[in-house]
Amino acid sequence: MSGEEGPTQQQQPEQEKKPDEPPSAASDAPQQESGSSSPAAEPAAVAEPPAAVAEPPAAVAEPPAATPAAEEKPLSFRALVLTGHGGYDKVKLQVKTMAKPKLKAGEVLVRVKACGLNFAELLARQGLYELLPSPPVTMGMEGSGVIEAVGEDVNDRKVGDRVIALARSGMWQEVAVVSADRTFLMPEEMSFEEGAALTINYMTAYMMLFEMANLRPGKSVLIHMAAGGVGIAATQLCQTVQDVTVFGTASASKHETITQGGVTHPIDYRTKDYVEEIRKISPKGVDIVLDPLGGSDTQKGYSLLKPLGMIIVFGAANCVTGQRKNLLAMAKTWYNQLSLNTMKLMQSNKAVSGFHLGYITDEQLFSRTMSTLLELYKQGKIKPRIDSSYHFEEVTEAMKRMHERQNIGKVILLPEPKKEEEKPKSNAEAGENVENDAAISEKKEEEVKAEKD
Amino acid sequence: MSGEEGPTQQQQPEQEKKPDEPPSAASDAPQQESGSSSPAAEPAAVAEPPAAVAEPPAAVAEPPAATPAAEEKPLSFRALVLTGHGGYDKVKLQVKTMAKPKLKAGEVLVRVKACGLNFAELLARQGLYELLPSPPVTMGMEGSGVIEAVGEDVNDRKVGDRVIALARSGMWQEVAVVSADRTFLMPEEMSFEEGAALTINYMTAYMMLFEMANLRPGKSVLIHMAAGGVGIAATQLCQTVQDVTVFGTASASKHETITQGGVTHPIDYRTKDYVEEIRKISPKGVDIVLDPLGGSDTQKGYSLLKPLGMIIVFGAANCVTGQRKNLLAMAKTWYNQLSLNTMKLMQSNKAVSGFHLGYITDEQLFSRTMSTLLELYKQGKIKPRIDSSYHFEEVTEAMKRMHERQNIGKVILLPEPKKEEEKPKSNAEAGENVENDAAISEKKEEEVKAEKD
Repeated sequence: MSGEEGPTQQQQPEQEKKPDEPPSAASDAPQQESGSSSPAAEPAAVAEPPAAVAEPPAAVAEPPAATPAAEEKPLSFRALVLTGHGGYDKVKLQVKTMAKPKLKAGEVLVRVKACGLNFAELLARQGLYELLPSPPVTMGMEGSGVIEAVGEDVNDRKVGDRVIALARSGMWQEVAVVSADRTFLMPEEMSFEEGAALTINYMTAYMMLFEMANLRPGKSVLIHMAAGGVGIAATQLCQTVQDVTVFGTASASKHETITQGGVTHPIDYRTKDYVEEIRKISPKGVDIVLDPLGGSDTQKGYSLLKPLGMIIVFGAANCVTGQRKNLLAMAKTWYNQLSLNTMKLMQSNKAVSGFHLGYITDEQLFSRTMSTLLELYKQGKIKPRIDSSYHFEEVTEAMKRMHERQNIGKVILLPEPKKEEEKPKSNAEAGENVENDAAISEKKEEEVKAEKD
Repeated sequence: MSGEEGPTQQQQPEQEKKPDEPPSAASDAPQQESGSSSPAAEPAAVAEPPAAVAEPPAAVAEPPAATPAAEEKPLSFRALVLTGHGGYDKVKLQVKTMAKPKLKAGEVLVRVKACGLNFAELLARQGLYELLPSPPVTMGMEGSGVIEAVGEDVNDRKVGDRVIALARSGMWQEVAVVSADRTFLMPEEMSFEEGAALTINYMTAYMMLFEMANLRPGKSVLIHMAAGGVGIAATQLCQTVQDVTVFGTASASKHETITQGGVTHPIDYRTKDYVEEIRKISPKGVDIVLDPLGGSDTQKGYSLLKPLGMIIVFGAANCVTGQRKNLLAMAKTWYNQLSLNTMKLMQSNKAVSGFHLGYITDEQLFSRTMSTLLELYKQGKIKPRIDSSYHFEEVTEAMKRMHERQNIGKVILLPEPKKEEEKPKSNAEAGENVENDAAISEKKEEEVKAEKD
């Protein structure tokens, strides 16, 4: 389930399978897995190893079992693979070929049409996201597409269904095998881009505002990075409750857009002290702070809380200052993080919490939340804002855009090859051996065309 | 506003007035206050000094200004005064006499009929409650009674109204001057004992469950000391939400009562490990933990939380092991208290908060919460359970009962003298000089009868 390559690939025999990953992580068709694992890298907080682990994985050398119909025609697909930790060039576009997979019970094969890029993948590339299996691994936690095959015991999904799919990794490829439980039927009016943008950002925002915090009419919320994916989602969700005041930080050029989106008081954090700005407007502070930054910003957020208020730390974006792992920024963020004892909390009547969707394993919670979000979408109360869409071969640009915080809303990745004015190579020339492991460097993009099956 | 003695008292000239106390603290009629203060003792968390501080207090030596009508007849009243920090004997019944007070604008004079005893007062007696002014001081944060006089600008209260009154201190006396804003009209069917039992316990439980935590249908709650005042209140409030599972710790003899009150799973914490017991019933743990204990119990409670769950620490009862301040118990509680950083919170998706009603200064929140509670009372959804009522002269027994956790529900103090079979002394013999400073020791109670006015 590490989202790794099929059996015809030979450059990555060291692929690993972690035994305690949730069963719903997107996996490559035919789910070749070595029995070796590295459980030490898995944080203790991830509990409840799935029952599926008990099944002995097929050995890597074995050819995949395939359905009679699928044997005739191998699958070839493009995937964005993290090949190591570091800069943008560590994410490479590869083309993989394999026999059509035999699905396990409860699984579906999805032809992926759009994927979401998240801050977590920027962290993962730098080696700062412990939930991603070790490289090489196909990244991607969310996507949307069309079901191409269903395994046994899947009764509520059929071939042709348009679905949103959620996984721990492996969604950044043209086809993905996912647990049917972690697919959600898309409303007809929803585009694939919107579908890919809904899952992580809106689930994160929703669970924070309504499960952890207690957003009710009349409350005030500070949303950092208000133009980012979670920021936009949180702002929209705040609009579903009467009379909520939203303070949103973003650079000045984005203020008009986020104000239209529902931010009551946009604050340019680059030129102003947001604590002072908020105190001017609301001397008593705010009720809820959503903090994706960490470090000293958590301390500031805590200080801004009204009594009975809550700060939710859900990231450490302050760690990410350059393209690569920055030990100094990490140390600074770590050193400045809020550290509390309960006596101090009692005297201030405040709540501190942490949120990380990746550590949540409650399937019912996922289903319930997605169901609520899809209902809100149908009612027109939320609508993902797509900042930009990049084809897989443009992944560097996509990552740069998010890293440099140029985006307003969601950055989408499209598995489909970009249609160029000048066709570089014919499909016949582009054999799979040539295409494999083609790197997309940040300086020079190589055109990579996959063989269509 | 320290709840201290009137001008005819002479044994306590060192009385102090802290400048930044809320204006609604119950004050002795005629509000004699020395200008000296000890602001250093006031925790920084208490913000917003009330505007009333600006008024220069009348000097102690000055005779009180009195209304013409009241001049004729001085007020004499009984009060329970904390004379120093230590054991039960530090709370003494005193009789005070003074001219009838001139009320300030917004104030009312209440003839107190019943007062609540809270765990905070046990702590305060030991010197562990930093919000109480230094001794000598009349204790008591809540009571009920009848309005005997109203100051200017009080339009919604009149003489004869039955009210609940809330103050920082000073409610344990027969008459108290309080801010009209902190009085609440009692429903006709509510007894004075019920009124005195409603405020602190139910406000605490309500704000924790519904303002800080986010109690909703289907959730589970661990309530420690489930037979205590807050425990009973929290259990009843849990019943107002559908399908809430309550785990309640209490000694076995109280299980029948608390089960009838709504506790789903009573656990005898004296003979069983409550963590194990809860895990047997609910392997995933609980959604909300209300923790009045502190120390290692906070760590246990945190470990029991489900993802997205919240522990609210609202006391440190583990500090209170003997009759007097126990440095060892305090050190142990302090050492074992939960200390957290935000990274750890993120990985576990948990929330930690502290609650202390004494540090809340939001008047609107008080009013809104009391209004909700009174409505719930009228609907029959909550009803304070009175464990026992003690006359002022029996305060040692009252404190002992709570200290030794024998109570199931609220312990009430009654200002009215106890009617004995054998009258000890005639009122004529019991002059105020004789009665003043009469100590109620834990070994031997002295009969103290106040002169009726």
